Amino acid sequence: MADEKRTPVTVLGLGLMGSALASALVRAGHPTTVWNRMPGKAGALVAQGAVEAAGVAEAVTASPVVVACLLDHDALHEVLAPAADALAGRLLVNLTSGLPDEARQAAARAARLGTEYLDGTVMTVPPLVGQPRTLLFYSGSRAAFDTHRETLAALGGNGVFLGEDAGAAALHDLALLGVLWSTLAGALHGFALLGSEQVPASALLPFLGPWITQVVLPGIAGAARQVEAGRYGDALSTVALNRAGLAKMVKASEARGVRPDLMVPIHGLLDAAVAAGHGGDGLASLFEVIRTPEGGA
Amino acid sequence: MADEKRTPVTVLGLGLMGSALASALVRAGHPTTVWNRMPGKAGALVAQGAVEAAGVAEAVTASPVVVACLLDHDALHEVLAPAADALAGRLLVNLTSGLPDEARQAAARAARLGTEYLDGTVMTVPPLVGQPRTLLFYSGSRAAFDTHRETLAALGGNGVFLGEDAGAAALHDLALLGVLWSTLAGALHGFALLGSEQVPASALLPFLGPWITQVVLPGIAGAARQVEAGRYGDALSTVALNRAGLAKMVKASEARGVRPDLMVPIHGLLDAAVAAGHGGDGLASLFEVIRTPEGGA
Repeated sequence: MADEKRTPVTVLGLGLMGSALASALVRAGHPTTVWNRMPGKAGALVAQGAVEAAGVAEAVTASPVVVACLLDHDALHEVLAPAADALAGRLLVNLTSGLPDEARQAAARAARLGTEYLDGTVMTVPPLVGQPRTLLFYSGSRAAFDTHRETLAALGGNGVFLGEDAGAAALHDLALLGVLWSTLAGALHGFALLGSEQVPASALLPFLGPWITQVVLPGIAGAARQVEAGRYGDALSTVALNRAGLAKMVKASEARGVRPDLMVPIHGLLDAAVAAGHGGDGLASLFEVIRTPEGGA
Repeated sequence: MADEKRTPVTVLGLGLMGSALASALVRAGHPTTVWNRMPGKAGALVAQGAVEAAGVAEAVTASPVVVACLLDHDALHEVLAPAADALAGRLLVNLTSGLPDEARQAAARAARLGTEYLDGTVMTVPPLVGQPRTLLFYSGSRAAFDTHRETLAALGGNGVFLGEDAGAAALHDLALLGVLWSTLAGALHGFALLGSEQVPASALLPFLGPWITQVVLPGIAGAARQVEAGRYGDALSTVALNRAGLAKMVKASEARGVRPDLMVPIHGLLDAAVAAGHGGDGLASLFEVIRTPEGGA
């Protein structure tokens, strides 16, 4: 049931994530208005207690806080265009995935409309939206984050404000997504290696968790310290040693019919690190070849 | 002090890992004999109570259990050649890094000498050798593993026997090393993205642990189930959606002067998955393109 003391919230975009966000708001007692560009997505939410708006301007007008969760920033821009006047004086919480510069452009457009802007990224899958531990990154208006802290907590209890640069949430999201993709791809490569000898994928699972938490994560924390210090010496495991290991990995993968696509570029980065004089340094020195000092947008 | 009730153990190879293994054996009270091809590595161990042998045959003769931790299998073969006769009737615990087939060849050579053989991999860094939680994989002679369980526990309390195929330890090691390399490379890529906006690497650390344990690891466990079932549907996050995300990642990295080498092949694998009809499936379906069914050694 909607609670009179809770801030009314509108959710634009009812994909898997948008629907999960709206459902979490309804559960937390917020009067919740929903709208989706393609009709037919609001049924379950209306049954839970949400109100479906007939159009985007009507949806925006219904609440002081508007959460947008659309396919991408192009869709965000198209969807909001007819509601430009209605957005003045409201808070737009943009949870649409995008790059840091897209978030900054959306913040600039909101400023021109007289709309407060918070950019955000939901760092979980839709079924875990709204739980106490669920992490969301926010960046943009600190005043809006502070004022609406309780409302935002309905989306996930672990809301972290990363600063007034609207692009900060997207930047951190991009960094963590890269870790998700690379780690998952590494695990699938491992499953394929096991599979080449008829060992089931699940045989790796009891070891994978402790391996990552006890070995890989401490290694990454140490790498962060080395990256910040710009010093990569005193390594327990050198670039040269790991390059030899990766050469074996590539060869062994190919011999088993396992595509080495993921391992080849890591070997290549290690080659580049050796060429740059890091052969006797630790793996963290790969940072120096991944970022090109002369680059940058 | 060496304990009369403990099995005498010889350690061949006193690099960082071999020295850590020998030190753990001394600490656990095993009469410990050490030897290294290049002299001058045994000083600290002798000060702790180890005995340095003058030659490899003398070292092997000193103990019923011989632990070898050399640079690679070529070095192992060269080092053991002059001690072939002395190895008969002893247990060789080979902790030299190698591929599954190298382990199987070493097991076959040991069998010809009348030597029991256990292949093993130390799944940690040298400073953590010998601790109760430290994981080592073993494969080869089950009888030897059972008989020498207490001696092996001195090297690390979490010794796991993976089967009588001597290559099993190396296979699991290879799979976990791939995860280490891919995850660390992904984190360094993330540090480089943050660095492109002057955000320090350590800013990612408070989020990286929970992200990996609460999102990535459950995702990998789900992927293992899908891989074993050969069904990849009902995905919260499809191949097509992630391919779009990776295209943005590659573009955003390049725009910032961050080498996208790690992300490009993941995007390529997603392309291949779409081409194979997995666009609407979950990311675990990448497994089907990483392993080529017609391949295999």
